[in-house]
Amino acid sequence: MTLRQRVADLINKPATQRFIIGVILFNAVLLGLETSQPVMDAFGPLIRSLDTLCLTIFVIEILLKFYAFDLRFFKSGWNIFDAIIIGIAVLPGAQSLSVLRALRILRVLRVISVAPSLRRVVEGFVTALPGMGSVFVLMAIIFYIGAVMATKLFGADFPEWFGSLGQSAYSLFQIMTLESWSMGIVRPVMEVFPYAWAFFVPFIMVTTFAVVNLLVGLIVNSMQDAHNEADNLRTDEYRDDVRQRLMLIEQHLANINRDKK
Amino acid sequence: MTLRQRVADLINKPATQRFIIGVILFNAVLLGLETSQPVMDAFGPLIRSLDTLCLTIFVIEILLKFYAFDLRFFKSGWNIFDAIIIGIAVLPGAQSLSVLRALRILRVLRVISVAPSLRRVVEGFVTALPGMGSVFVLMAIIFYIGAVMATKLFGADFPEWFGSLGQSAYSLFQIMTLESWSMGIVRPVMEVFPYAWAFFVPFIMVTTFAVVNLLVGLIVNSMQDAHNEADNLRTDEYRDDVRQRLMLIEQHLANINRDKK
Amino acid sequence: MTLRQRVADLINKPATQRFIIGVILFNAVLLGLETSQPVMDAFGPLIRSLDTLCLTIFVIEILLKFYAFDLRFFKSGWNIFDAIIIGIAVLPGAQSLSVLRALRILRVLRVISVAPSLRRVVEGFVTALPGMGSVFVLMAIIFYIGAVMATKLFGADFPEWFGSLGQSAYSLFQIMTLESWSMGIVRPVMEVFPYAWAFFVPFIMVTTFAVVNLLVGLIVNSMQDAHNEADNLRTDEYRDDVRQRLMLIEQHLANINRDKK
Amino acid sequence: MTLRQRVADLINKPATQRFIIGVILFNAVLLGLETSQPVMDAFGPLIRSLDTLCLTIFVIEILLKFYAFDLRFFKSGWNIFDAIIIGIAVLPGAQSLSVLRALRILRVLRVISVAPSLRRVVEGFVTALPGMGSVFVLMAIIFYIGAVMATKLFGADFPEWFGSLGQSAYSLFQIMTLESWSMGIVRPVMEVFPYAWAFFVPFIMVTTFAVVNLLVGLIVNSMQDAHNEADNLRTDEYRDDVRQRLMLIEQHLANINRDKK
Repeated sequence: MTLRQRVADLINKPATQRFIIGVILFNAVLLGLETSQPVMDAFGPLIRSLDTLCLTIFVIEILLKFYAFDLRFFKSGWNIFDAIIIGIAVLPGAQSLSVLRALRILRVLRVISVAPSLRRVVEGFVTALPGMGSVFVLMAIIFYIGAVMATKLFGADFPEWFGSLGQSAYSLFQIMTLESWSMGIVRPVMEVFPYAWAFFVPFIMVTTFAVVNLLVGLIVNSMQDAHNEADNLRTDEYRDDVRQRLMLIEQHLANINRDKK
Repeated sequence: MTLRQRVADLINKPATQRFIIGVILFNAVLLGLETSQPVMDAFGPLIRSLDTLCLTIFVIEILLKFYAFDLRFFKSGWNIFDAIIIGIAVLPGAQSLSVLRALRILRVLRVISVAPSLRRVVEGFVTALPGMGSVFVLMAIIFYIGAVMATKLFGADFPEWFGSLGQSAYSLFQIMTLESWSMGIVRPVMEVFPYAWAFFVPFIMVTTFAVVNLLVGLIVNSMQDAHNEADNLRTDEYRDDVRQRLMLIEQHLANINRDKK
Repeated sequence: MTLRQRVADLINKPATQRFIIGVILFNAVLLGLETSQPVMDAFGPLIRSLDTLCLTIFVIEILLKFYAFDLRFFKSGWNIFDAIIIGIAVLPGAQSLSVLRALRILRVLRVISVAPSLRRVVEGFVTALPGMGSVFVLMAIIFYIGAVMATKLFGADFPEWFGSLGQSAYSLFQIMTLESWSMGIVRPVMEVFPYAWAFFVPFIMVTTFAVVNLLVGLIVNSMQDAHNEADNLRTDEYRDDVRQRLMLIEQHLANINRDKK
Repeated sequence: MTLRQRVADLINKPATQRFIIGVILFNAVLLGLETSQPVMDAFGPLIRSLDTLCLTIFVIEILLKFYAFDLRFFKSGWNIFDAIIIGIAVLPGAQSLSVLRALRILRVLRVISVAPSLRRVVEGFVTALPGMGSVFVLMAIIFYIGAVMATKLFGADFPEWFGSLGQSAYSLFQIMTLESWSMGIVRPVMEVFPYAWAFFVPFIMVTTFAVVNLLVGLIVNSMQDAHNEADNLRTDEYRDDVRQRLMLIEQHLANINRDKK
């Protein structure tokens, strides 16, 4: 057994997996404690060094994995996912930029790549997405059209909501979620443009319809798939069985008829 | 090959289709840039003339299509859809009225009529609509009744929300989407009419129920159709096969029995 | 043919049905016009007398129906529905009480009882309700418990929202629809009772879950019923066919075997 | 018949069950009346003593049950449920702590454990939960990550909403329900952090998608189960029948063929 194989075996051991999950959860608690000022005042240096220890373990694990599997490492999307998450934490500026420091908590997502049951749920979501690509493109088109129209029509009078394409897109997203769409946005707009409802009400109808379509489509689809696989297998087995028996009977009868003549 | 056929071939070529999609997307970007004042200050005349160029291409395409297909042009709803969108842009006043100018962005919708996958999604939506016509009529009746009642009961005290049939219908639509229905509208109304909830709470229950019914109905329907077509085909094939084999066996046996006598 | 039969025939004639639908829609327009003050100032007396004419037609229709069908009249829920709606309009005080006058618009609902396609949709809703009775009872229990607890815990400090059982039930309904539940109600309550979220968040989870359950349950149920009836019929026919053919074959073979001996 | 059996019979009698349901409903009304100050001023002592009477009946019932079934008492989750609810009411401090006093209304939940139809609905919900465990864990991970990030990024500037992990989790729950998410929270945050939408919009998309997934998953699942059990049984019966007939025919034919030789 080569060293590579030994390392691969070590990594795939259930005990190692459990140890890594433990480190992830311990790290999650540490990062949670970091948000509390009194805790940081009392145990700040300890928490920081424990966090560095956890990070070191993750880096070692990923390097061992890379050594063990070589280029096959990149064949699994989950390995790339892990590498990016760890990569964010070891970036040079990661300790100074507050956004990058906040992103360190994304490490907890590694639990998903390690726990098979969570992995399956996320894979279920992801494999369902391409089937709905057309609806996504349609939504993007509707949003782009809506944003351009809203900016042109209402941008000059309501710069805070529709001043630029980006602001309009954000406001339309808010309207699509139905949050304060009428009292907060459309009623004030209607005081200047009395027919503004002719733009917003159809927009709400079309987008909420498309969103419901998207969500329910995704879900029912993946559900029927799951359900029917087991069912179809049994049906196929039964059908093959009946067909073979019928063919056997036909042969028998053909024999009898031939023997006659 | 007549000239007409040659023009039809030219229009249906994949290269032409790709070129038209390219022009649509380029035009979409132009119309997006038009919303930015600094960009318009710098490149206004260029963007305007490029936009005119795009429009010219669309007009030529649609004229060629009309020449090639003659009256069959109007058989496809998508052609009529394209003609209306282009027509809006070349209307005499289209450069002066701000609303008509804003409607030019609807040209981006032409992507749907050109890209087959988007076309199929939209056609799926549209063919599902008639099946739900009755629920739509029911919703219209409920809204009309609700608007008349709200106007009569609350119109005098809350003219801003229920002053006329139109205002009441808009307010009831807002209430149906559950936006600020209680804090924004019903609680203030209840300070004058303490039993107003007896009107609004049932209205919310009935309309949200009807809307959910409408949406889920549409979706599940079209989903089951899609799913079952493939499944039913296989089942029908299998059943025909079994039936034919059984009939063959019966014939064999009938032969044997007849031969005996 | 007795007079009764003749009257019954007259009522069931398609022409009569169409005439009644026409009167209903004409009456709906009249009642809509009544909400507009300028229209009433100009044509008030005309509209009122036309409305009385419509009402007279409805009363005559229902009296004829009652004469024609006698006590069988009460066998159809739709007849009782019509009678109640007409009854509201001819009540002695109906012209003075503003609420009863507003209820006259409910006459438009008679369109449902006359148009078969609308009737079927409403009947579909109504027949689906009993199957979900248990979930309704459960919701009522949860609301009663929630209202009592909210009144006892928060009633003294927030009398406007939780002062009595009725006010609490209304506020909880608002919270269930997620309207301003946090910014409008729970955050202010949490300033006095910091653990109020422990009551409201589970309440939201349980009730929204129950509502979704209720709606989707109703719909999917009625959908599967509709879908499977046709499918099952075909499957049953096929199965009966296969069984009969197999029995015939067995008989044939039994004959052959017996003949042998 | 031992005394134990007699007690068990007494408890399981329909009359006893009806009596207990009656006491529960009567107690529910009493606890509802307790929320009204004028009623308590007039009949306070009477209501309190009737409440104590109801509680005494519940305690006796549960003691009899425990005597009758002994340790098998704890085998039913519903018995434990009843015992906890009664236990809350007889706690020493139950009359002084306002929260514990408010919890007495939970006794109404005992209706569920007594009425079989409600029991079945709740059991349906509960048995469906484990199948969705992975999605719940996923949601918890997303909320934890979101809360840590929001606290680190926005905690210093918006202590009221994101001051601590708990406050952030509550605010994120509010945002997930879409209540005032934009006008109330994200727009103010975006005035300080213009790119805050890059955190909140994906959070809304991911969590609402997961919630819809969770709910629809649970429901469709349990629905398909219910539907298919009856259907599958009939299909299995049919298939077994066809298989046996075919085997019989094969045997017949094998006999004929063997006889020939």
